[in-house]
Amino acid sequence: MYSLRNVNPMVRRIRVSPQSALQRRSEQITALLQQGEQKPFKEVIDISSGDSHKTGIKPISFVRQVLSVCLYPELLHDDTLPGDVRQRAQRLLGECDGGSVGSYTDSCGLPHVQRSVAEFITGRDGGVPSYPRNIFISAGSQTALKVMVKLLVRGEGVSQTGVLTPQPCPHTLPMLLEEVGAVLVPYQLREEQGWALELGELHRALTASRGHCRPRALYISNPGHVQSRKSIEWVIQFAAEERLFLLVNEVYQDCVYGEGREFVSYKRVLFEMGQQYSEMVELASFHSISNGIMGECGLRAGYMELVNVDPAVMVFAETLLCTDISTPVIGQIALEIMVNPPRPGDPSHNKYTQEILTNRITLAQNAQRAWEFLIGLPGVSCQPVTGGIFIYPHLSLPPEAVEQAKSDGLEADVLYSQTLLDEEGVCVGAGCEHGQREDKYHIRLCVLIPSATLEKVLARLGSFHLHFLDQFSQHA
Amino acid sequence: MYSLRNVNPMVRRIRVSPQSALQRRSEQITALLQQGEQKPFKEVIDISSGDSHKTGIKPISFVRQVLSVCLYPELLHDDTLPGDVRQRAQRLLGECDGGSVGSYTDSCGLPHVQRSVAEFITGRDGGVPSYPRNIFISAGSQTALKVMVKLLVRGEGVSQTGVLTPQPCPHTLPMLLEEVGAVLVPYQLREEQGWALELGELHRALTASRGHCRPRALYISNPGHVQSRKSIEWVIQFAAEERLFLLVNEVYQDCVYGEGREFVSYKRVLFEMGQQYSEMVELASFHSISNGIMGECGLRAGYMELVNVDPAVMVFAETLLCTDISTPVIGQIALEIMVNPPRPGDPSHNKYTQEILTNRITLAQNAQRAWEFLIGLPGVSCQPVTGGIFIYPHLSLPPEAVEQAKSDGLEADVLYSQTLLDEEGVCVGAGCEHGQREDKYHIRLCVLIPSATLEKVLARLGSFHLHFLDQFSQHA
Repeated sequence: MYSLRNVNPMVRRIRVSPQSALQRRSEQITALLQQGEQKPFKEVIDISSGDSHKTGIKPISFVRQVLSVCLYPELLHDDTLPGDVRQRAQRLLGECDGGSVGSYTDSCGLPHVQRSVAEFITGRDGGVPSYPRNIFISAGSQTALKVMVKLLVRGEGVSQTGVLTPQPCPHTLPMLLEEVGAVLVPYQLREEQGWALELGELHRALTASRGHCRPRALYISNPGHVQSRKSIEWVIQFAAEERLFLLVNEVYQDCVYGEGREFVSYKRVLFEMGQQYSEMVELASFHSISNGIMGECGLRAGYMELVNVDPAVMVFAETLLCTDISTPVIGQIALEIMVNPPRPGDPSHNKYTQEILTNRITLAQNAQRAWEFLIGLPGVSCQPVTGGIFIYPHLSLPPEAVEQAKSDGLEADVLYSQTLLDEEGVCVGAGCEHGQREDKYHIRLCVLIPSATLEKVLARLGSFHLHFLDQFSQHA
Repeated sequence: MYSLRNVNPMVRRIRVSPQSALQRRSEQITALLQQGEQKPFKEVIDISSGDSHKTGIKPISFVRQVLSVCLYPELLHDDTLPGDVRQRAQRLLGECDGGSVGSYTDSCGLPHVQRSVAEFITGRDGGVPSYPRNIFISAGSQTALKVMVKLLVRGEGVSQTGVLTPQPCPHTLPMLLEEVGAVLVPYQLREEQGWALELGELHRALTASRGHCRPRALYISNPGHVQSRKSIEWVIQFAAEERLFLLVNEVYQDCVYGEGREFVSYKRVLFEMGQQYSEMVELASFHSISNGIMGECGLRAGYMELVNVDPAVMVFAETLLCTDISTPVIGQIALEIMVNPPRPGDPSHNKYTQEILTNRITLAQNAQRAWEFLIGLPGVSCQPVTGGIFIYPHLSLPPEAVEQAKSDGLEADVLYSQTLLDEEGVCVGAGCEHGQREDKYHIRLCVLIPSATLEKVLARLGSFHLHFLDQFSQHA
């Protein structure tokens, strides 16, 4: 019997995340309900991850139609499908070896998809050129990020690569950095300013890291907080001065909806700052089909664009991607459609635009609705959301609850989330997942979900919250 | 500009494989042909990898039909599609969260797919039970293998984990072992015996490795050479005595066609050897939708079954799979169909069976045809193939060719393959990729390709071979 003591000690060190534990518990409860067990709720609603299809957000028809024709090309003759669906499928099949989505593609993806991504970026950034050779298609943004961090890792002890990482950060990031051998250097986002990124805090974090690692990269979510152009310029200047490689998570670029806010890419600002910066600052930007409005998590595709990286380095990026053999072709095709949607006049244009718009409106309205509801709860404060698909309220929990959690060996926000799941069947993320400072408790809710589902969540959460506070006050 | 000197030295050490270089050259030539450049051939035929769709092998209709309905559920109402296609799609969509293939699944895959795989294995192994909890769905067998080797790696210097690895071996294996930090301990397959695995050689390799690493695992391809049951028993005894974890690549299990040969799984033999072995020997078996008759390389899915592994260890296997986020759902569904095909009486049963059979017959006939042709060429010897999708002839090359290669900084079989590609537009694999001993030269050809394509390959290869020998004799 192969037992734990024989397992790689580096692997054994990996902490199973509270979120995984919560999701497993959520599945167990669902199974019990299906077996007929009685609970105060009929179904579990899981809004802990960014998986919007799971909660009932619908896929975009054009994407799915094209994919289904690519898989079963007999449908090319099915004239109940729109003409542009069949044309697109035919065009994309022509790019696949042997005309089959069952063939491998290059490690960096189908050249046609690389080209479409580069054109999309050029258009998005007002003409700042993007080149297909700098585009790496991967099975999601995470895969590409891991490749990039692997390239950046070197040195040991005080010269080991450090990555400046926001707190809160995506919950998969700490594990990724640990797996690859990079040191996480935390910098705090300023909650009171809507989770703004502050230059002073970046300097503080950098200085504090000296002596225990060598920071070589700065990870940014754009948007997390929707940064102003000026703020992006400051960050780029900082990266230039400190010679930091910019790792910019731009997976929510199509989810900016705060009034007067717009998405501006780091690359665009970099190029508009002039040659002094545009020819020097090293940058990787990540995007995917999973996280944004499209929500195609299960198809697995994303891309990375590299800026100011020597072609000799890119060969190794490609080699590392190659160990994953090939990005799923179906995902690559969905990505192509995301960056190259039907155009005005195309038969599918109206429907496509309408479906995307509907999801966007749902998202923006939900973000507003959830915020209004949450700030009305006692002991809850919450920053309004202007971008992304999550809302992240702060909880002031009774000391008795914190004590109880401590004696259970849990963070207090995990205890809160677990109890919410058990009592009301709502699964949310716990703030400690995202690198929260101790005794600052948060939960995370995905709001790219059907509005009716959000109402159920808020109703359950509201009554639970009062009950939870009450219970621990009684204990006191 | 991020330059090579700043890249992770471990990554910089990775050697770009000659096969990647060959495939890139092959794509460049294809691009030139498309731009109208004149060559002695009209198209490049690439049979260097196991990508059979690329060469024109057709996908299995039922698989593609079900997948297309899963992607675009409107097709559930399309009664031109067979009833069992629509039923299967409906059933599988019911297993996806939110009824969408766009949702994430558990890290180990959809529970329904795990169950189908376990039932398939139980049936295949004559009732030896397989349990869904021991099945890990992954984005191809390679991904799962990497997870398993990661778990096995520990120690440093003389106690660093070694993996006994056949020569020749799959060309991706050396890079995988290096990436994860395991030591490759080579053992030679006996070419003259049809690439048989010999117990004496395993002992030799094990002994030779002592003092520079600690062998903890034995990698076997079953089939590579189609082993007899007796031979599998010996290997299992050896693994038991030496406490080696068995890593068994069984991705070609549906490709055994030599007369009187059949596939027997390591797990089945293990269980039939009695408790002394069946409760002790640790084993992981790998299978995928890419490599066998189905040839769905681009969809990315496979599975690993673990035997005699503590559940506490499996948690870490799951955690490591989790860093890849989720196996592509479309691939998982194709895998479900591969292990649970239409049954007699189902509307699609005949067509499915026929299509699989056609591919099998093509494969077996091609293997025979290629062998007969190759042994007729001067300076070529070749073992008959009884399983798998590759044929692996040995080349006796003129010393002048070997000299020439050396002065070009190449292995002689790479020079041969490059010249074959340039002059005749046929891309084959070079034996040195697979860990060939020096001055033993081989090429590798995939024979799961349309028969007409095989004829073109043989004709081009035959005339090239004579010309190559001739050219170097003239130089002498």
